[in-house]
Amino acid sequence: MNSIQRLIIIGSGNVATHMAMAFKKAGLDICGIYSRTFENAQILAKKLNINAFKSVVEIPLDADAYLLSVSDSALPEILKELPSFDGILMHTSGSVGLDVFSKNIKRSAVFYPLQTFSKDKQLDYSTVPILLESEDAAVLNALQDLGKKISETVRTIDSEQRKQLHLSAVFMCNFSNYMFHISESLLKENDLDFELLKPLLGETIEKLNELSPAEAQTGPAIRHDKRTLNAHIEMLKNHPEYQNIYQLLSDQIQKLKS
Amino acid sequence: MNSIQRLIIIGSGNVATHMAMAFKKAGLDICGIYSRTFENAQILAKKLNINAFKSVVEIPLDADAYLLSVSDSALPEILKELPSFDGILMHTSGSVGLDVFSKNIKRSAVFYPLQTFSKDKQLDYSTVPILLESEDAAVLNALQDLGKKISETVRTIDSEQRKQLHLSAVFMCNFSNYMFHISESLLKENDLDFELLKPLLGETIEKLNELSPAEAQTGPAIRHDKRTLNAHIEMLKNHPEYQNIYQLLSDQIQKLKS
Repeated sequence: MNSIQRLIIIGSGNVATHMAMAFKKAGLDICGIYSRTFENAQILAKKLNINAFKSVVEIPLDADAYLLSVSDSALPEILKELPSFDGILMHTSGSVGLDVFSKNIKRSAVFYPLQTFSKDKQLDYSTVPILLESEDAAVLNALQDLGKKISETVRTIDSEQRKQLHLSAVFMCNFSNYMFHISESLLKENDLDFELLKPLLGETIEKLNELSPAEAQTGPAIRHDKRTLNAHIEMLKNHPEYQNIYQLLSDQIQKLKS
Repeated sequence: MNSIQRLIIIGSGNVATHMAMAFKKAGLDICGIYSRTFENAQILAKKLNINAFKSVVEIPLDADAYLLSVSDSALPEILKELPSFDGILMHTSGSVGLDVFSKNIKRSAVFYPLQTFSKDKQLDYSTVPILLESEDAAVLNALQDLGKKISETVRTIDSEQRKQLHLSAVFMCNFSNYMFHISESLLKENDLDFELLKPLLGETIEKLNELSPAEAQTGPAIRHDKRTLNAHIEMLKNHPEYQNIYQLLSDQIQKLKS
């Protein structure tokens, strides 16, 4: 299989936008974009100075690859509408398996960029890991080359691993962000500025370059400092939901060393 | 009250070490160091090219200030041993109130650097917030000047606020670090590299420069994506403790928008 040069984008959300721009910057020939909402396709097409297709029948059948980047729930539907392409058809979802593609799709794959995308925020794509999956070795090779054009980290993993990675990301990012939220809400109640804790957060993250999180664990729970733990539980008495979280997490952290 | 020039360090742990080095760099006259373990005092004294005092009676009584940086539990004991100083006596603890000082101490204060210190890791002190407390306005002024010599952020807060800040820091840093630990342990079980999630973590932190944590919240819980939430709970069936945490945090996050 030759290397991927001619690429078509299907979808116009944050991921589609960021990837289209990264591919364009890497010198690929983006032949056009299709989105079920034509206006959105036009906005992205204008940004990239390329075509927007008004219906699926306008999409050329002979591109090297089709990047399908729509919401998880829209994926099965849009797959039914698409014609049969010769090129590689790849989705970009972290939580949808390869089995979303019907068996009569010749070259199917997952091309999953592991990152959180905000529409208007520039992103250095070179640090974003690209995670590939396909049952076709030639397709994987072509996607390795494609991935390396935009990122330093390209790996092949299977659907089960991708799902585990997504679950781990929920703890790593979504749940830690919720901890930041609790922290901020407690600070606000006491007329304290969230900025005060940012240097501490920065150092907490930086430590992970040298230590595992278990090694880097600090605080009253890991010190088994009952006096402070009890004082904190008492301080949270007006927030029973935060109290529950404090208790559960402190109990678990205390088990780390024992 | 004149500005603080002559300073004595009491204690030889991570905080004492880092602060002594920062003060020395800022041009203060560190007259010596006392630690209950003389060997530790000698190590730090050698680093700074200053005196180590072998017993409390050797500590000069006429320094401008005494930085008392020992563990929370050792504070009350060591305070009993110390002679009566003319200068400012300040402790560096986040969770101990001003009331640890007996009433006959003339000038007492808290000089609390809000950071996590590791012994062998260099630290840019200029970004570390210094939080002050004293009932004496002249002492506060002198400590403001002292703080500004080593940090860009110097604030006065009361004991209750400092305790609230410490509690918030537990959520912000200790509990988020535990989320990283769960994430890493799940990745390990599936032969996946923790490094894969670090760019995502970096972006999660960077978002906080523009958005509040509540605004920045992403993931299946905030999307009320029941299919993914149920799938994740099922995937955690061999880790009932992680399952509990997943359920509790997801329930709370789902309440954020409603």
